[in-house]
Parts: sequence; structure tokens; C-alpha cells
Amino acid sequence: MLPLSPFPWQERPAGSSELLWRCTANPLTGHRPIPGVLGIYNSAVVPWQGAYVGVFRGDRTDGMPTLFRGESPDGLRWTFSPEPLALAGADAAIGIHEYAYDPRVVPLEGENRYLICWCNGYHGPTIGLAETRDFRTFTPLENAFLPYNRNGVLFPRKIRGRYAMLSRPSDTGHTPFGDIFYSESPDLTYWGRHRHVMSKGPTWWQGLKIGPGPVPMETPEGWLMIYHGVCNTCNGFVYRMGVALLDLDEPWKVIARGAGAIFGPEAPYEITGMVPNVTFPCAVLRDPAGSDRIAVYYGAADTHIALAFGHLDELVAYAKATSV
Amino acid sequence: MLPLSPFPWQERPAGSSELLWRCTANPLTGHRPIPGVLGIYNSAVVPWQGAYVGVFRGDRTDGMPTLFRGESPDGLRWTFSPEPLALAGADAAIGIHEYAYDPRVVPLEGENRYLICWCNGYHGPTIGLAETRDFRTFTPLENAFLPYNRNGVLFPRKIRGRYAMLSRPSDTGHTPFGDIFYSESPDLTYWGRHRHVMSKGPTWWQGLKIGPGPVPMETPEGWLMIYHGVCNTCNGFVYRMGVALLDLDEPWKVIARGAGAIFGPEAPYEITGMVPNVTFPCAVLRDPAGSDRIAVYYGAADTHIALAFGHLDELVAYAKATSV
Amino acid sequence: MLPLSPFPWQERPAGSSELLWRCTANPLTGHRPIPGVLGIYNSAVVPWQGAYVGVFRGDRTDGMPTLFRGESPDGLRWTFSPEPLALAGADAAIGIHEYAYDPRVVPLEGENRYLICWCNGYHGPTIGLAETRDFRTFTPLENAFLPYNRNGVLFPRKIRGRYAMLSRPSDTGHTPFGDIFYSESPDLTYWGRHRHVMSKGPTWWQGLKIGPGPVPMETPEGWLMIYHGVCNTCNGFVYRMGVALLDLDEPWKVIARGAGAIFGPEAPYEITGMVPNVTFPCAVLRDPAGSDRIAVYYGAADTHIALAFGHLDELVAYAKATSV
Amino acid sequence: MLPLSPFPWQERPAGSSELLWRCTANPLTGHRPIPGVLGIYNSAVVPWQGAYVGVFRGDRTDGMPTLFRGESPDGLRWTFSPEPLALAGADAAIGIHEYAYDPRVVPLEGENRYLICWCNGYHGPTIGLAETRDFRTFTPLENAFLPYNRNGVLFPRKIRGRYAMLSRPSDTGHTPFGDIFYSESPDLTYWGRHRHVMSKGPTWWQGLKIGPGPVPMETPEGWLMIYHGVCNTCNGFVYRMGVALLDLDEPWKVIARGAGAIFGPEAPYEITGMVPNVTFPCAVLRDPAGSDRIAVYYGAADTHIALAFGHLDELVAYAKATSV
Amino acid sequence: MLPLSPFPWQERPAGSSELLWRCTANPLTGHRPIPGVLGIYNSAVVPWQGAYVGVFRGDRTDGMPTLFRGESPDGLRWTFSPEPLALAGADAAIGIHEYAYDPRVVPLEGENRYLICWCNGYHGPTIGLAETRDFRTFTPLENAFLPYNRNGVLFPRKIRGRYAMLSRPSDTGHTPFGDIFYSESPDLTYWGRHRHVMSKGPTWWQGLKIGPGPVPMETPEGWLMIYHGVCNTCNGFVYRMGVALLDLDEPWKVIARGAGAIFGPEAPYEITGMVPNVTFPCAVLRDPAGSDRIAVYYGAADTHIALAFGHLDELVAYAKATSV
Amino acid sequence: MLPLSPFPWQERPAGSSELLWRCTANPLTGHRPIPGVLGIYNSAVVPWQGAYVGVFRGDRTDGMPTLFRGESPDGLRWTFSPEPLALAGADAAIGIHEYAYDPRVVPLEGENRYLICWCNGYHGPTIGLAETRDFRTFTPLENAFLPYNRNGVLFPRKIRGRYAMLSRPSDTGHTPFGDIFYSESPDLTYWGRHRHVMSKGPTWWQGLKIGPGPVPMETPEGWLMIYHGVCNTCNGFVYRMGVALLDLDEPWKVIARGAGAIFGPEAPYEITGMVPNVTFPCAVLRDPAGSDRIAVYYGAADTHIALAFGHLDELVAYAKATSV
Repeated sequence: MLPLSPFPWQERPAGSSELLWRCTANPLTGHRPIPGVLGIYNSAVVPWQGAYVGVFRGDRTDGMPTLFRGESPDGLRWTFSPEPLALAGADAAIGIHEYAYDPRVVPLEGENRYLICWCNGYHGPTIGLAETRDFRTFTPLENAFLPYNRNGVLFPRKIRGRYAMLSRPSDTGHTPFGDIFYSESPDLTYWGRHRHVMSKGPTWWQGLKIGPGPVPMETPEGWLMIYHGVCNTCNGFVYRMGVALLDLDEPWKVIARGAGAIFGPEAPYEITGMVPNVTFPCAVLRDPAGSDRIAVYYGAADTHIALAFGHLDELVAYAKATSV
Repeated sequence: MLPLSPFPWQERPAGSSELLWRCTANPLTGHRPIPGVLGIYNSAVVPWQGAYVGVFRGDRTDGMPTLFRGESPDGLRWTFSPEPLALAGADAAIGIHEYAYDPRVVPLEGENRYLICWCNGYHGPTIGLAETRDFRTFTPLENAFLPYNRNGVLFPRKIRGRYAMLSRPSDTGHTPFGDIFYSESPDLTYWGRHRHVMSKGPTWWQGLKIGPGPVPMETPEGWLMIYHGVCNTCNGFVYRMGVALLDLDEPWKVIARGAGAIFGPEAPYEITGMVPNVTFPCAVLRDPAGSDRIAVYYGAADTHIALAFGHLDELVAYAKATSV
Repeated sequence: MLPLSPFPWQERPAGSSELLWRCTANPLTGHRPIPGVLGIYNSAVVPWQGAYVGVFRGDRTDGMPTLFRGESPDGLRWTFSPEPLALAGADAAIGIHEYAYDPRVVPLEGENRYLICWCNGYHGPTIGLAETRDFRTFTPLENAFLPYNRNGVLFPRKIRGRYAMLSRPSDTGHTPFGDIFYSESPDLTYWGRHRHVMSKGPTWWQGLKIGPGPVPMETPEGWLMIYHGVCNTCNGFVYRMGVALLDLDEPWKVIARGAGAIFGPEAPYEITGMVPNVTFPCAVLRDPAGSDRIAVYYGAADTHIALAFGHLDELVAYAKATSV
Repeated sequence: MLPLSPFPWQERPAGSSELLWRCTANPLTGHRPIPGVLGIYNSAVVPWQGAYVGVFRGDRTDGMPTLFRGESPDGLRWTFSPEPLALAGADAAIGIHEYAYDPRVVPLEGENRYLICWCNGYHGPTIGLAETRDFRTFTPLENAFLPYNRNGVLFPRKIRGRYAMLSRPSDTGHTPFGDIFYSESPDLTYWGRHRHVMSKGPTWWQGLKIGPGPVPMETPEGWLMIYHGVCNTCNGFVYRMGVALLDLDEPWKVIARGAGAIFGPEAPYEITGMVPNVTFPCAVLRDPAGSDRIAVYYGAADTHIALAFGHLDELVAYAKATSV
Repeated sequence: MLPLSPFPWQERPAGSSELLWRCTANPLTGHRPIPGVLGIYNSAVVPWQGAYVGVFRGDRTDGMPTLFRGESPDGLRWTFSPEPLALAGADAAIGIHEYAYDPRVVPLEGENRYLICWCNGYHGPTIGLAETRDFRTFTPLENAFLPYNRNGVLFPRKIRGRYAMLSRPSDTGHTPFGDIFYSESPDLTYWGRHRHVMSKGPTWWQGLKIGPGPVPMETPEGWLMIYHGVCNTCNGFVYRMGVALLDLDEPWKVIARGAGAIFGPEAPYEITGMVPNVTFPCAVLRDPAGSDRIAVYYGAADTHIALAFGHLDELVAYAKATSV
Repeated sequence: MLPLSPFPWQERPAGSSELLWRCTANPLTGHRPIPGVLGIYNSAVVPWQGAYVGVFRGDRTDGMPTLFRGESPDGLRWTFSPEPLALAGADAAIGIHEYAYDPRVVPLEGENRYLICWCNGYHGPTIGLAETRDFRTFTPLENAFLPYNRNGVLFPRKIRGRYAMLSRPSDTGHTPFGDIFYSESPDLTYWGRHRHVMSKGPTWWQGLKIGPGPVPMETPEGWLMIYHGVCNTCNGFVYRMGVALLDLDEPWKVIARGAGAIFGPEAPYEITGMVPNVTFPCAVLRDPAGSDRIAVYYGAADTHIALAFGHLDELVAYAKATSV
């Protein structure tokens, strides 16, 4: 892992007992971050060559969601490429030919490449895949699954010899249901051995649907997965975050699942915006110095990039202590 | 009625012609009022031993709504018990075994006890009942009705020799319809003689559904009922308050029903929060000094406790003058 | 119980292994059974003075469902009164002021009267009640519950000193959900001590909703309840019958519940008609001679009265043997 | 055209590349602009006798939308008549007998009268029409169309000898679809020769429905139409503005249609209010001095009047440059 | 009116008290009446040169509904043209360019031409119009209305100097609502002076939606209109027929409206077919001999042409006697 | 291919011009074909050892669909095993642990085994796979895809070195949408290279959804695929059959697609039953004698097995001649 020296970690505010706390620089971006773009928000950030690089969801002024490249010296101040990522495959079935959103980026352990997954428009939403070695050139691979699917998230290393992915099968629109599944692949082209991981519910905040969030974090006790959960209210939905601990070798086995939401929309930039009451996590950074500090990038109100801090150990402990 | 001496009444702001005006201390609570709770908002407050006590809806961080006890020296600054109210009956059919929300509290005239009604999860929402004499020990009674019902509100005294309750029959979820009905009981166990009181509509602000609010206030002209009404818009719902005057002896007979909403979401803490555009009244205090001053506790945006002031006489007059 | 000598029992057809078999005289009625009526179908039949009398659902040519009186020498050939049953109470809240459908009739053990329950239109569907001693004069009682409810069915005797009723709480329209609940009353006016009996599912044929059918039959092993269950298909619903055994003293406790449907639409007069694929049981006759023979009256396709035969012992055995 | 000397034009803010920019005085109105009215927002403003007059949508405290007259010395500070516009025809089929909303006003070229169109409640929403010569007396005409229709917008002159109107056929409620059509009339009573103009889509921001906005502006290259477009998100809708250029003689022929939204909810008074995330344009003023400056009146969050500035030439150029 | 000598009138069956009775030759057509066509059913029949001619809805094997010409010596045995009616206008906005269904034909009194109305696909359903003088050549006129509309039915003569049409405004799909409106036109091109005639309800059989049926029949007491009404059941819809009497000079005024359905699906060919439980009237013949005998052509189950007989006087009397 | 000598081919009836004609022995099965089963209908039949064997969908009396083995000397008279197929894998993620329906069977060319695909209940519907060599022992493989998917159909040989499957991604219930996709696998465990084949529409009979039917038939001109298409009507759905010709080497490329339905519900056993108006093809037999005769097994009304005959050459010709 590269040195993350400049990352501006923030401590938990005095008096707070929250598991995740907001960065004081939030929101990192606002409406119209670059010309021709309504907002850049759902973020896949990784450390890169002593600084930070990321792939981001941005909605163009015609409303179409697509992917933008961004770079930052410190993880807070971002410069975005003016043009969307070009990810055209030789065949209309791969790469970005229609819409693209909600990316995740993962450096593959032991391989000199980064994988990007995103929700890819191919006769409905499915999981697009691409690889890069330099964040300049991106090579699209085959879509992982048949439609309809969202929130594909690769594990950062092979598990039992195969690439592994979490995802949320869904339908053609803004699906009012959703469980998390696990799939594996020998070659990133063919996928199978699909396993159900966990369902929406059982607690209220995640009673409508759930989906995987950032790349899972390996810990001695299992993969710590931050995921999003959605509930219905008497006037709209609320998108919050939760945590679960998955078995290291058989990640479809849930070791512990925290009962409560660990984070949700409360700040003004989270409860208002293009889509109110959404906090949607897509990336997490771990402190390279070996502490258990983490930083979670999340989209706020489908408008802003925002950042929250926490301790990985506390999330593991919370999942175990409150497991449902 | 106990002395309410410390209650911080506020006069109508200069230049205002509103029937209800916001307390300048609003919102009384915010996100995360106590550890493990997302928000405490819908409120059932009564004067108690020279101060104030209440039963409140609070949503735990797992999203589950349940009831919390709170106390306050002045009705504005509240301290909440860290643990939800324990209301377990000997039988799973009574007390709180699942969710609980939107409580009302009423001191029963001529009886040395207080009754609590709430929306109780028993194979769907129905009306839970419990009694207390000291706000320390609460004894659950039988649920009043078959599911599906919300917003049970007891009258503060027997009417024609029987306990009397308003409620809103509904269905399993966030019901898009709702009328107010009246029921009575000889013993708080068996309920019958159900009468329809009034329907959603006829004016637009209450065109989707209505339900009873705080305990009705007895006046020489009838029971003054503050209720909530909901309308649909081109992007979500709006929950506002209205007033109606019910016959003293036959409360299912509507003497007058104000045409307009007397209060609705306008303040920032009402139009944003966990559920935008909700002002939901659950309790009212009357000035013990004999004036017609009232104070209405309402949940704001399913996030905050808020307070508004008014004059009972004006509400009665408004209901009569604009009756539809 | 009165002598049922003329009743034309039929044996199980050779080669059949069905629990219920169709009467060869089916359908007993057809379209336009009497002037001004589209069909008479859901039936509440009891033996009466050596013959049979019943209260029936009939849909007038204006589509309104209401109740008709019928009489028959043998239970097969029915003569209907040309006018609907008059059940007007002094108050619009009781008796039939709007629509009325799906009646059940029960002779109250030890009382010289018959009770009629039906789905009564009072600001939505609820359970109407009336009594008669001669099937000439009917006296309406208070509606048992708040709306919205359908399929109220009284037990034939008091249980632990109180009248007892099964019902299916529902909503304003053709509810796509429904469980069976139990309620009791000291006086047939006030109802309480509501208990959940059983839910839709768990087997597919009853996966959408369920509701009580005829008056439960007392057996040494418990109350044998025939109920209706509904499933969704890829093109419409199917209404079938099932059986469950309820505890004699605490009938909300399910002793056994048969896994499969015991009867469903297969005959031409069941799979076509005003409402295709409906077999809806409302009444059952037991052989007065002491055998376990029973005859089930059911509405077929919301158009016809039809009859099926079976053995009570076999239903009890089936419920126990396949209990889910 | 009358002198518009006092109009407070504002230049594009430094650094902005937006096609429309907000007036620094926004919002021009707020909650409760006059007694008995929740908000006045969707606006039809015209220059009049050296100042400005307008017809506005205002929602009464009973929630009913109706029309109010307003006048202003400068287009920013508005005084509203306390009473709704009286537009009662001799026949219940014309004029305002129920609700009325979303007005547009157009001075008819070469005729000494102004026409008002609005969404008129006559057994469902349709397009009401009235004329005035002095903004004191308004004479209702026949409704233009059968229900269900919204957003009728007259062209400012006859086209090929006939009056011409754009509208959006819809249904009884908050229609989730909508295209723009063109109709013409020899006499403002009978309408025909209906032509489809353009459909919802093809870009995402207008993927749910579209409808005409202010009176189209004549330019040498065609009619410049500002319209509203709506998209669905994972938690509610967003109402934005777009531009299209229509053929001068055959306005149902679309010469160009801008790909992106030119304006949308971003300011606090646009993303919160009675209906969040709505910017709804109803009127436009052109600089009488002959420049291409325009000012767009729009309703913000169904609560406020707001104003944005732009240049007509730029809108034309944008429509052509990005045409889809 | 032409001689109808060969028409095979049938008397009311002995013992029947029905207002309309089925032709014993029913169904007149079945599945696959001509090659490439699934069924021909909704029928617009007129006497013509001593025999009968008609325009019919036929669904092609690709499912597309369109119009076919048919001729018959006696009104029972029909020969259909193998090709759909060609009704292409110079402009895509008129004539049949997409789908076409549910035609009506009316000889215009005092004009040597027949008018055809049908539901025409032009960016949604609207009312197409065409004229013919010889049933060989058909000239399309402008569509009468903006979408979305179905069931346009012309009156057989001008009323107060203008052409007059009934229709049912609807929406883009299988609309679950629908009222009948009246419109008039000086020239069959421009339409206006729209008036509401009657709403769905108030009786159950017509509780979901209603629409006009055959061309209204002039009688001394008013226009006798046969219309269709639809109700929802617990498993699908039922399409039946009703009658209303409209004012001769102001046909939007309802003089009387029969409470009940006068006809509905009961025969096997009505309760099963491509669309079960539909009887849909589109045409009526009056006895040229001056009796009040009528024959109603109706589509049965969207599969068959069927015919029923009745007496006009009885329908008038029924509407008056049972008026709601 | 095995000798099919006993198969009772039937010629096209005189006068018929249909592409498929019904077997005169239809329906081959009825209600309650074996004890404990409501109906056996959707059929996967293959020739086997001089006779016929098949895997069938049967709905148990508890409503659960599952798979039954059947055998027949002639393809018309079937004997079913009394017990459902046991297909339990070592892991709950494979084999039949919940419901199973709509099987297809294919002998793999050049491999001594048969593959069975079906809709498998694993946290939603997905495509189950199993193999057999003797139709006695069945070995479950991994499910092919993530949920939600229905109608998996394997090609009868590898294509370009990989197994190939058609399927219809869907959602959790009775999906109102559906397109056909193509996927491939090197090993029947991992699947990828997903390609869209064709969408619902463009003709009306297939306007709601489509899905693959029997195993595609190889012809010199391409794979002839019989598929099902569904349309919505004003009262329910209709399931019909269509044909398309797919490229031999790249089967996701559609060479031709017939415009019309080639078969649909018309016979009484197709338009009534447990699910009216369904004809659902699952298997096809080709004449082993080398003629182009084919026999299509289809489920009728989700109740019966039925059979239709045709000529493969004619289907190919029809697809090409009417291609849309």
C-alpha cells in the first residue's frame, strides 16, 4: 500500500459517541462542480503515487450519469477531468455505451492492476468491469452478470483461488427490494457459484433494500463490509449505512451484522440536494500507518462528495456486539 | 389540573395573524438526542407534579420506533430515559412486543391514573393501551382494536358512562387513505358502538388522509379536536394540522370543521429532516390559570420535538367561522 | 339440532381420493336466479323446521351486493325472497344502509336465536351483526368492529363465557393481504381481547390472503375451521379452501393446519362466471344422524351456489397429518 | 411593447458559465405572502402601463390552488390582491368553479386584449381561458379542451390565421407521463388540428414527463420555447427547465432541442419548501430595449416566486448546438 | 332510412323478462374469422343498399387492432375484406398510421355521407374521424381531440347547428377511470364547448369507468344512449351495458339514467375468450318498419361479434323508472 | 437421435392455414392428474429408448410448483412418478430446496448426458441446472445466474466451444417486463459474455414481455427459436407463441423475427383453467425420419399438457417473410 502521508485524518469530536463522524470540510463538492455537470458525488477513491485518484459518478446536465476521473493531493480537494471516462469496448455489450454510475475501484492484491466496477447500462442496469494500470488507460472487460444488477463490489484479492464479487440483483428501475449476493470467477469473464449473503431487514432502517458499499476490508475476524440500507417512511426513503462481518474464506457466510445504522442523513447537505436523505458509501481508505483509522467516502443527497471518519476496530466490535 | 406555573408561554408575534405560532426555542430536540436514538419527536406531554412528563416516539438507530419517557422542568428542556419504556404484557398480544409509536397520554378525569395509547405492532399496527399512576410503572391493557389502526386518542373523561376513543383505521403500511372514527368501551377492554366521525377531504390540504391528534379539549361549545391532514403534491406529501368541533355528548357528530390548515411545515426544521414536510401534533397543554392559552407539541420532520402556541377560543371560532 | 332427514347426501365417487367432492346437482343456481338479480352465490344455510333456510349474497342488476332470504325443502332446490333482507337500524351505523355481502348464520347454542354476520358497508367494509328467532324478523345489532374488516364468523357457542368471532381485517378495496384474527365479547356489542390466529401462507395456494369460511365445527380434537386461501398467478387469482384445527378453549391457538388446498376451482361453473376461479365456502351442514358427513355450501365464480360433500373426520385427520 | 425601464436586469455573475442565473433578490416571496394563503409561486407576469402586472398561482390555507392578481413597480416587489381572481362564467363549464393553477398570460399581437390560460378544474384538469383588457375585468371563455390537460400556453400571435396553443395532455392526478402537443383554433372556442410536438426524454433529466412553460418567444430562427422536464430519482422527482426551437409557421416541428437542462433546483429555496426540488417556469420578459436579455419567472418548491436572467440568443444557440 | 326487410328480428324468449335478449345465432363469428386475424368483434353496422355494411375492429395476428370492412345480406352472416381499411392521410397526424379500434359509423342526417369515428393511435389514443359516401372510399379527417381519448361517438344529426360528439377522455393505457363528455364542432375539424355528461358510478356495475356505446337514438323523450360500464371484482373486471336518456337539445343534460346494467357477460362466448367477461356495444339498428325494435351489436370477450334484441320504448321506460 | 417411430403425428386439418394445429387428443392431461397434484402442464419431453420421457411442472395441492418425471409410450399417454424429482445438492444454493418450475431438457450433442434447466427458487427465481444420463439419477449443478431469472434454455450443442443458454432476467414476482438474453459458459459452472438477443415488442401480442421456449432447433438458416410473448388487455394477459431465427454462430444476432403470434389460446382448455389464456411452449420434438415435422408441447391454462403440430420449414419461412 502506498504512503498516505498527506491524508487529513480527523479525530472523533469531543463528546461524540458516533461510530463515524463527518469531516469538517464537508461537503467536498457542491452543485455544478465542473461545467456541464450537475453534481459529482458517489466516489471510488484510492491512494495513488503519494496522492489520491478516483473514479466518480457525475450527472451531466442532460441528467445522464457517467464516470469521471478525479485526482487530489490530499483526498479533500479534487480536480476532475472535464470529459467522462471513455470506456468503449469493441462490442456494444461491454464498456460504457449508455449510462454508468456508482463506481468502485479496487487494487487487486498481487496484481499490478486496478479493477473498476460500476452499474452499466446494457439493456438495463448490470455490472460493468474495467481494468487500469495507470489511471490513464482503462480497458473494459465483459459485464459480470446478466441484467438487472447494481452495486457490484470486488473483493481486493482472490478468495480460494477465484475473483469474488458482491452485488445486488435488482430490476429495471428504482427497485424497491434488494439483497446482497456473492459470486466468483476464475477469470473475471465467467461468473458463477452464486451465494446469497444477506437480505433486507431484519431491522427497520434496512427494511426496504440493501446493497454492498465500499470494497470490503480484511480483518483478522473477517471481511468488514460497509453497506447501504434503505427504509420507507411516511414521505420518502432514507439511505443509511450499516456494517457486517463476513467469513474470510466463505464470505457469503455472515459472522455478524450490526443491528443499527452507523451513519445516516442529518447534515444539511445530506437531507437536501438533488435527492434528499441519501448517504451512499462507495469507498473507504485505511490508514497506511497501521492504525485502524478509516475514512469513508459517500455521496450526499446525490449532489455532494462527503467524507466521514471512524475506526475499523470499532466497526468490527459494533457488528459483533449488536449482531442480529 | 396541576399548577403549570413554570410554563414559558409566548405571545403571538407582532404582525402575525396566524392561529398557531412557533415557539422561539424550536426545535426543542435534534438528531441523536440520546445515544442510540436517531430522533425523538412525536410527543405526549402532561403536567406532572409541578413540572412536565411525557411519553415520546423515538426511533432507535436500528430504525425501530419505540416509546421513551421524558421529563422537563419547563416543557422545553427535556431529559429522556436512556431505555425505552418497558410495556411487556404476560401475553404477546398486549404491551410492546414489536414496534410502538405516536403515543398520546391522558389523565382520566376522576380517576387517579393516566392512560397511554399508541400505535402498537401486533401482526400489523393497532392501538395499544397502558395505564400508569406514577409514570414509573406502566401496566399494559388489551389492545383496543383489531389491526389495522393508527392514532388512537382517548377522551379525557367518560362520555355517557363509557370510555371513548378516536382512531384512524388503516392498513398494513403507509396507508394512503384514512378517516376518523369514534368507539366506546365500558371497561377499556371491550370496544364497540363504532361511529364514523369525519372523512378525508373536503378541502385539498386534507385530501389524502386525516387522523386524530392530541387529546380533545372540552369547551362549552364542544370538543375541540386538533387533527392532522395530509395532501399529495407533485413530489411528496405534506402533513398539516386542522381543527374540528365535536358534539359534547355524541362526539361523532361534527359541529364545525375548519376549512383550512391551521399549521403546516414552513420552518427549516419542519421541511427537512428524516421525513420532510411533516408537522404532526400529539399533545396539547392548556393554561391552568384559566386563560384560553394552549401549547401544541408536534413532531417536526420526524426528527424534532417542536412547540406552537395559540388560543383555544380562536380555534373554536375558526372552526365555526370556516366550517366546511 | 333439527332433523335433517331430507338432505340428499352423496357418497364419494368411485376412484376419487378427494377430501371434498362435488354434488352432482351443481351448480344449484345460475345467472339471473330471480328478477333483478345477477346471481345468488355465497350462502349461509341452516336446517330449520325440518327443511332448510338461508341467507345469501345476491348481486342486484345495479351490481350492489345485498342479502336475500332463501328456503329449500332439501337443501338443493332454493326459493328466494324477491326482496333483499330489510335490516335497517334506527341509526345509520347499524344494519344495512349500503352494501352487504358474504353472510354467515349460526344458531347460538343454548339460546333461542340465530345470529347473522356479514360484510357491512359503513364507511368501508366492516362486520354487521343481526339476530333472528324466526327467519322472518331480523334485528340488527351494532357492527362488531371498526372498518376495515371482512369475513366475520361467529362460533356456535360462547367460549369461556364470551361470544367469539373470527374475522379478517382488511382495507378499503379488494385487499391483497389478509390474516385471520379472533375477538371476543361479553354482550355482542363490545369486542376485545383480539388475538392473531394465523397468517397467509406458508404454502403457495394461500400465499396472498386467507379468511375464515363457515362456522367452525366443534370436534373432540378442536374446532375444525374451513377457510379460504388465495394465491396470485401470472394471470389472476385463485380462491381455494383449506382446513385448520383450533384449540377448543383458546381458539386463537392453531393445533394443526393442513398444508394443501382441500378444494379449488376445476368445474366449468367454478373457472368461469362473473369472477373466474373462485370457490368460496360460507356454510357447512353436519349430518344430524351422528355420522361425520358434512356438506359445504360455496359460492362458485361469484355466480352460482354449489355444494360439496366430505367427512369431518377426514378433514381433521388431514389437518393433523399435513400440518405446516 | 411597453417601456420596461424600471426592470432590474442583472448581469451574469463573474465566473459563471450558466445559461440562466438567479436574481440576487430571490426568493421574491415566501411562506404566507398574504393572509389566508400558503404560498404564491407559479407566475404569469407581463409589463403593463409602465410597471408590471401578473396572474399567479396561490394555494389557499385550505390547500386549494387558485389565481391571484399581483402588481409590481419593478417586477421584484409584488403586491397581491387579497381575493382570488373571480372568473365565474354563466355556466359551470367555464370559468373557475373549482381549482385553478399554473396560469400563463399573453398579450395578443394586434389585438387589444390579454389572454389568460390556466389549468382549470372541470371534472378533472383542463385548460381554462379568459380575456382581459385592463387586468380589472376578466371574461372567461370556453375551456379549450376536454380533460385531462395541463399547461396550456398560447402563442403571442395567430399562426397561419389561427390561434395556437401548446399543452400537455395528462390524466386525473399527478400524471407520471406527458408530451407536448400543438392545437389551433379559428375563434378561441373550437380547437383542432392537433399535432404532437415532442415527447418526454430522450435525455435523462426529462425522462418522466415534459410540459410547455412560458409563452414562446419569437426569434428569426423559430419560436424559442422554455419548457419543464421531470426525472425520477431514487427518492422523488426533480423539475428542471429546457429549451427547444420550434418552426415559425408550423410550430409542431421541432428545429432543435437542447440536450441538457438549462436550470434546476439548487438554491435552498428551490430544494426545500412545500414541494422540494421544483423549478417551474411560467413567464418570461424580454428586454424592450431590443437587447436579447430575458428574465424568467419560475415557481420554486411550490412556495416562492423566483427570477432568473439570461440571453435569448444563447438559449437559441444552445438548443441548436446540443440538439438531440 | 333504408329498408331493412331482411333483418332477422327475434322475439323475447318466453319466460324472459330481460330488456335485451341474445340472438340465437350467437356468436356470429369466432376465433380466426379470416386469415391473419385473431378475432373480429367490436362492430359498427349500418343498413346499406338493402343489405348491411359495417366497420369492425379486428386484431391481426401480430396483435395490432385495426379496422376491417364487412358486408352481410342479413346482418348475421358477415364477409370481411381481407385487408384492413386504408385510411392514410397526407399527414401522419390524421388517418390510421398506428393502431385503430372500436369504430362507430353514423349516417349524417341530411348529408349524403357516413362518418366513422374510432380510437386512433396518434402518440396515444385519440378519436379518429373519416367520411365515406360509398363504403369503398374513405377520407380521413382531422382527429377530433388531443390524446388521450377513447370511444368517440357522433350524434346522427347536428344539434343546434353543430356536429356533436360524446367521448371518454382517458390516459395512455387501460385507464381505470372514465366519464362521458360532450363536445361540439361547426365543421368537424375544430371542437369545443366541452361539457361533462355523466360520471362513473353511482351504481356498482359501473363503478370503475363508463364510456359511450352505439350512436344515440333519438326519441321524443330524448336521446337514448346505450353505454358500457365497468366494475372491479375480486378477480378482474366486468364490462356491461346501461342506458341513459339525454336532453334532445342539450345532450349533456341527463334526463334519466337507469340504475342497473341491462346486459352483461353470461353466455360462454362472453365469459371466456381473448378477454373474459366483456360485452361491449358499438352499434344499434332500429326497425325501419317503425316499430321500436332494436338490435344491438356488441363485442363478446374481445373475440366474437354478437347480437342482442330489445325494444327501444322499454329502454326509455327503464331509464326513467330506475333513474339514479 | 433415437427412433421416434411410435409418435402419432397428425396432419394439418383440411382448410386450415395455421402454422401450428392442435392435436386431436388435447388436452393430454387435466385437473388432478395424480394424487396430491393440482395439474401437470409445462413439459420438457425428449425421445428416450424408443419411447418418451419428460420432466414436467406440476403444482402440488399446497400450490408449490415442482418437477415430476413422466414417461410415455407414444408421447400422448403419460405416466407420472408419484413423487417430485429429488434434486437436493449438498449445499442449499444448488438443487431444489424451494420451488421449481418450467423445466427444459436437452440432450447435449456429443455428450452422453441430458441437461435439465428450470426456474429454481433460491432467494428468488433463478436458473437451476442438473444432469442425468438415465433419467433415474439427476445430479444438480450450480445455478447458472444470480437471481432474478426465468426461462433458462440451453442450446443442444456447444457454440464456438462453449455451452450456451438463453434466459429472461426478471424480478421477484410476476414480472411485467422481460427480454431474451444469451450467455455462455466453458464449464456449466461459470457464465459470462452476456448478450442481449431481443426485446419485448415491437408487435402488440408480445408487448408486455417475452421469454425463450423450447430448446432452439438447428436449421441451415439459423436456430429456430419458438418463444412466448405476452400482451396486456383491458382485462388480463394473454400468453402466445412466436418464432425467431438466430444466427448459428452468434445466436444473439436475430436474423428474422416473425411479426405475428403463431399460436395462442383459443380452445376451451386454453382459455379457462387455473390460469386463463395461457399457451406456454416448453419442448419440441422433431421427426426423426428427416421430415420437417415438429410437435410442440405446451402448457395450457397452467392446467393441462397439450400438443400442437407444425412444419419447421414453414416456421423458418414465416419468420423470414414477416420479420419485424
